[in-house]
Amino acid sequence: MTLSQIGLIGLGTMGAALASNIADNCFDIAVWNRTTSVTHDFVKNAGDLAPRITSTDTLEDLVAAIATPRAIILMVPAGQPVDDQIAALRPLLDDDDLIIDAGNALFHDTNRRAAEATGPFLGIGVSGGEEGARFGPSIMGGGARQYWDRVSHILEAISAKHKGTPCATWMGEAGAGHFVKAVHNGIEYADMQMIAEVYGVMRDGFGMSASDIGDVFARWNTGPLQSYLIEISGKVAQAYDPKSDGPLLDIIVDAAGQKGTGRWTAIEAQHLASPIPGIEAAVVARNLSSRRQERAEGEALFGGAPTSIPKDQLSIDQLEMGLIAGKILSYAQGFAMIEAASESYDWALPLPEIARVWREGCIIRSTMLDDMATALTNHPDRNLMRAPAFADQLKAHHMALRQIVAVGTLHGIAMPALASSIAYFDAMRTARGTANMIQGQRDYFGRHSFARLDGGEGWHGPWAD
Amino acid sequence: MTLSQIGLIGLGTMGAALASNIADNCFDIAVWNRTTSVTHDFVKNAGDLAPRITSTDTLEDLVAAIATPRAIILMVPAGQPVDDQIAALRPLLDDDDLIIDAGNALFHDTNRRAAEATGPFLGIGVSGGEEGARFGPSIMGGGARQYWDRVSHILEAISAKHKGTPCATWMGEAGAGHFVKAVHNGIEYADMQMIAEVYGVMRDGFGMSASDIGDVFARWNTGPLQSYLIEISGKVAQAYDPKSDGPLLDIIVDAAGQKGTGRWTAIEAQHLASPIPGIEAAVVARNLSSRRQERAEGEALFGGAPTSIPKDQLSIDQLEMGLIAGKILSYAQGFAMIEAASESYDWALPLPEIARVWREGCIIRSTMLDDMATALTNHPDRNLMRAPAFADQLKAHHMALRQIVAVGTLHGIAMPALASSIAYFDAMRTARGTANMIQGQRDYFGRHSFARLDGGEGWHGPWAD
Repeated sequence: MTLSQIGLIGLGTMGAALASNIADNCFDIAVWNRTTSVTHDFVKNAGDLAPRITSTDTLEDLVAAIATPRAIILMVPAGQPVDDQIAALRPLLDDDDLIIDAGNALFHDTNRRAAEATGPFLGIGVSGGEEGARFGPSIMGGGARQYWDRVSHILEAISAKHKGTPCATWMGEAGAGHFVKAVHNGIEYADMQMIAEVYGVMRDGFGMSASDIGDVFARWNTGPLQSYLIEISGKVAQAYDPKSDGPLLDIIVDAAGQKGTGRWTAIEAQHLASPIPGIEAAVVARNLSSRRQERAEGEALFGGAPTSIPKDQLSIDQLEMGLIAGKILSYAQGFAMIEAASESYDWALPLPEIARVWREGCIIRSTMLDDMATALTNHPDRNLMRAPAFADQLKAHHMALRQIVAVGTLHGIAMPALASSIAYFDAMRTARGTANMIQGQRDYFGRHSFARLDGGEGWHGPWAD
Repeated sequence: MTLSQIGLIGLGTMGAALASNIADNCFDIAVWNRTTSVTHDFVKNAGDLAPRITSTDTLEDLVAAIATPRAIILMVPAGQPVDDQIAALRPLLDDDDLIIDAGNALFHDTNRRAAEATGPFLGIGVSGGEEGARFGPSIMGGGARQYWDRVSHILEAISAKHKGTPCATWMGEAGAGHFVKAVHNGIEYADMQMIAEVYGVMRDGFGMSASDIGDVFARWNTGPLQSYLIEISGKVAQAYDPKSDGPLLDIIVDAAGQKGTGRWTAIEAQHLASPIPGIEAAVVARNLSSRRQERAEGEALFGGAPTSIPKDQLSIDQLEMGLIAGKILSYAQGFAMIEAASESYDWALPLPEIARVWREGCIIRSTMLDDMATALTNHPDRNLMRAPAFADQLKAHHMALRQIVAVGTLHGIAMPALASSIAYFDAMRTARGTANMIQGQRDYFGRHSFARLDGGEGWHGPWAD
């Protein structure tokens, strides 16, 4: 028997897709799943790929089936199962064998596992859902560089490609890969929420049909907003539902689920004191969406919210321009958070590489990331919103974003993410803000003191006398 | 020597004020500070109170000076110092002696300390700054009820009073008191930020002087907005600065500090999946305020933000009404978070009592809390925004809040907290939201499935075929 080049544990949806992807890229892979029948079914259904896949029934068999030094990918549920799997596996391995957690780990856990590891360990973020895992995900690696280098030829081979370049990169030590993946997911939340908000303007403000809204998204997907999420928003809006004989979108319940990764990002941003209001607003919006009963009671009490928007107050083109501005601002927040983490955790997270790795394979892939990679290369120390290419777009489009927020708000359409974006923009372009009032209050009630514009700190107001 | 009825460790600003308050209420108190000269100075300067204060130079002396069963208040910096002090003190105490952490502890720490305690332990939140600690704070108690009852006569005596009723209440087990204090501080952040935002409208949109703005706050303080924060905002705005011979407010640097309690509240809300967008926006605003250099670069690049607002677009009265609506909505968020924690931590947090305890002594004290206590009593299971008295106010004032956000946004004035408030209101009064788009996207890229309005879960779109 030929020994496999790599092993994989956990043949759930994502694990099975990743194993198939690896085999499809002509690597021999040994697989094991806790439920043996799952392993057998996987190989049985592997078709042309079967010759490259070695089914194993025990962990010992798995280990024996892999060439040394071994590399074994874990695709088990995040949390305790990962620790349990490592504990079970490590004693069977040689000292130099590599364990790779490619699941959806919280990066703090990856930091801990890297610190506790008694042998080579990597934590890699894999984005792109089942489709991405099967045919080319975006891969964000974390751990000691030497271990990344040992398996990078496999990870690059299976990753998405952008103009021939693999969307798989080493981000830094320990949990760096999973951290970048978390920010990716946070940005994904914000992107999705802002799309939902302009969808709300079109549906409730303009009274457009789902199909017509789908056409708008399809058209936007040929312009600056080109992205996977805009593309699928168009397809979702255009989908037909045989059961109701109408648009599918109109019968989907408006309560958004979440697996918690957006929440993790929001929590980490608070720890870093790094402002990501667009992502926070998106997480809040999902939480509120799940309160359907409360919302229905609110509507019964306060009256149906959205009222129609006269066409002369807001146009489809303004929606597009405002969404461009909102998107730039939420990515600016996300990249600034990555920068903050890079300093805080003593990583050297490669911002332009992150934009490139997200360019294909992952959920937030978009053409705009090309310009972001360039901007982050040319202006590494500057908030993305002030990089020339994006500053120009914001100058051109911030008025449209204002118009959406103003008109939407007057017409009762909830737009928390878009509103937070323009508030972020205004805060970040106002040299003289209003926190002097807050500092005055804090000194009044807590003797916290304040600094003076004309120099000096530790001043108090007359109330301190 | 008469034995003292209580002891206190830590004579910093807050500890000294609390000790004086206790003595002032005719309780004999023994005090100790790590630096002995601080203890001596404290007693030396205690004036009339000195006879009731026993100065001690060692922990052993402190313990010996207190009647059994002893009660000793810790007023040391939050975090490790509290653990260190408990570790040093507990071995000197009898089994039934009570340690009370009255510092600014993170409630998770208090939960842990309560669980680890080898003797009676309370964690109490004390709000009101130095002035409150000295002359009557708001006190939120946590720990075993029997220990609260043992010292409640002292804590009630030193607390603020509202119509004769002490603003000191037992909230629940373990960290319940410090948790309620954290939400108090979060609400405080939101209140302060919304005040700063309307200040910004008046200063930058209306071109009003600090003094005139102070007059507006002073007038508002005689109406529905009557509160300590509105009162001191007026005083801050009206304060004169001899050095610049102008309004003090105009020379205070617009970079707000924070001690992190708002951040804790935002993080805990994320863990609870309880939406508090107004508090989150306020924390973000403080973080952004500290980036003065970036904001100056932003203004240089994008141009000065705020432009003047024509008087026919927005009035001072609308600012007042909108601020009322925003305040109600941020308190609704805060109380809903308390309710969520009460369920999550298996507390039975007394919401109406919390409103009453905040009525005097603390930073967010206001007359509006009277109506909140009533509403939370009469409608314990209803979001505050839907309680009749507040629903009526929101019906009357939400259009003013919309107008502020719309006009302010169009004129480049950052108003993240007010904008988040109206977005929260609209989300909470819209029966049919827009998260169906998000669920459609999630099913498209991740096969997450969706529920249908016409019944059933686990559905997929045609893309899953």
